[in-house]
Amino acid sequence: MQSFSFIGLGLSDENGITLEGLERARLADKIFAEFYTNTMPRLDLKRLESLIGKKIRVLTRSELEEQDGRQLLAATREGSVALLVPGDPMIATTHVSLRLSLAKVGIKAQIIHAASIMSAISGATGLQSYKFGKAVTVPRDEPLPRSVIDTISDNHGRGLHTLLLLDVNPGFAGQLTIGEALARIIMANPENQDLLTVGTARLGAPDEKVKAARMRIMVNEDFGEPPHSIVVVGRLHFMESEALSVFCGATDEDLREKP
Amino acid sequence: MQSFSFIGLGLSDENGITLEGLERARLADKIFAEFYTNTMPRLDLKRLESLIGKKIRVLTRSELEEQDGRQLLAATREGSVALLVPGDPMIATTHVSLRLSLAKVGIKAQIIHAASIMSAISGATGLQSYKFGKAVTVPRDEPLPRSVIDTISDNHGRGLHTLLLLDVNPGFAGQLTIGEALARIIMANPENQDLLTVGTARLGAPDEKVKAARMRIMVNEDFGEPPHSIVVVGRLHFMESEALSVFCGATDEDLREKP
Repeated sequence: MQSFSFIGLGLSDENGITLEGLERARLADKIFAEFYTNTMPRLDLKRLESLIGKKIRVLTRSELEEQDGRQLLAATREGSVALLVPGDPMIATTHVSLRLSLAKVGIKAQIIHAASIMSAISGATGLQSYKFGKAVTVPRDEPLPRSVIDTISDNHGRGLHTLLLLDVNPGFAGQLTIGEALARIIMANPENQDLLTVGTARLGAPDEKVKAARMRIMVNEDFGEPPHSIVVVGRLHFMESEALSVFCGATDEDLREKP
Repeated sequence: MQSFSFIGLGLSDENGITLEGLERARLADKIFAEFYTNTMPRLDLKRLESLIGKKIRVLTRSELEEQDGRQLLAATREGSVALLVPGDPMIATTHVSLRLSLAKVGIKAQIIHAASIMSAISGATGLQSYKFGKAVTVPRDEPLPRSVIDTISDNHGRGLHTLLLLDVNPGFAGQLTIGEALARIIMANPENQDLLTVGTARLGAPDEKVKAARMRIMVNEDFGEPPHSIVVVGRLHFMESEALSVFCGATDEDLREKP
């Protein structure tokens, strides 16, 4: 039977798939995966194939995006297809575009949700999810788009936290690091260097790193392997201050309101 | 060995746990669960117990919150403890508070992430995650807190979407429904009735319902069983408009910008 499922793989490795996702993949005739909308260096593809009991074909960006996912649509005409994706499906607009292409040929895609940085960031930092303003991606583009600085300052002015997602471009030079992203932000507006930030690397992995510091300090901190992301901290509730101190190593000086 | 894990159960039923979460639960000496920070009516507790191979003790709100989770701390002194929670852990501040209490007695809690409404809402609606402003909970309190109306209008003025989480209070009268929440919002500010909204019920379940309509229409729509949530829609990118039309049944009139 013709069917299509987007299956989220979660944050770190093959153990981030849900029982429902695994079951759905086992029932599919053909399994594809993509790792360009986010990076999952810890994922063991062979082990994932053995869990599912089928070969997985990893798609490049152009195979997924060209001609509205022609290859995936063709596979779907012959039976059931599962596409494994990093994080929670549909955070990347490419997935939404593919879901629309499928709908146009009469296929209602299923979405099997999984963990995403969009909610995991609260768990890792202790910052409350309803205190995050809009998120923004820091791209590699030169110059840095004005929208990055505007989003930080707009959220900060309202006391809200800003999640900065860092550009992933495997064909280029891997993911932008925390240091690279912050250097660009300080360069674009040096006033930002005093803002409190939290850097996170490899969320959900055993060697996850989470650290709070002013941007001018954080820019020189080595977070090791990707994936990386950053929060620019807004106004803190007392429980958030305590969490930043206990879980992220924030100092009393870090937590003092700027005059 | 003393250890404590918060394990997310995802959106709908016992199949939303990840492979890592299941493995961690199987290794724990004692398993607790709570279902008051969110509602999971489809979850089959007996089946979850048989998957894990152990009995699960379901905690009430007061057992979890009183005296900083005294009962959980006591269990942790005797061995490894897993606490199963709806969605992704730490979205509820109660979990952050408990994690801080554990840290005070020297226990570094592990967090096993899972799917959350905070990211799944994008997948269900086709609205882009980076276009959501801050989220807000609609409580049962009378009168409706000013912050709900202010958050909607503040986000909307910036062209951003607003996720409305609906109060869960199992001891009271179940979760606030979409209709009840919107009636309160229209009552507080009748100008809101023309805003475009998307209502979602039972995300991730086979009978998930997702529907777009103006607030004055949506207030009378029956979404059936919980959990429910709502998005108040901001300015739409063309792909978002197409998604609201194809996936959520928005009409051309719904998608026309208000003069």
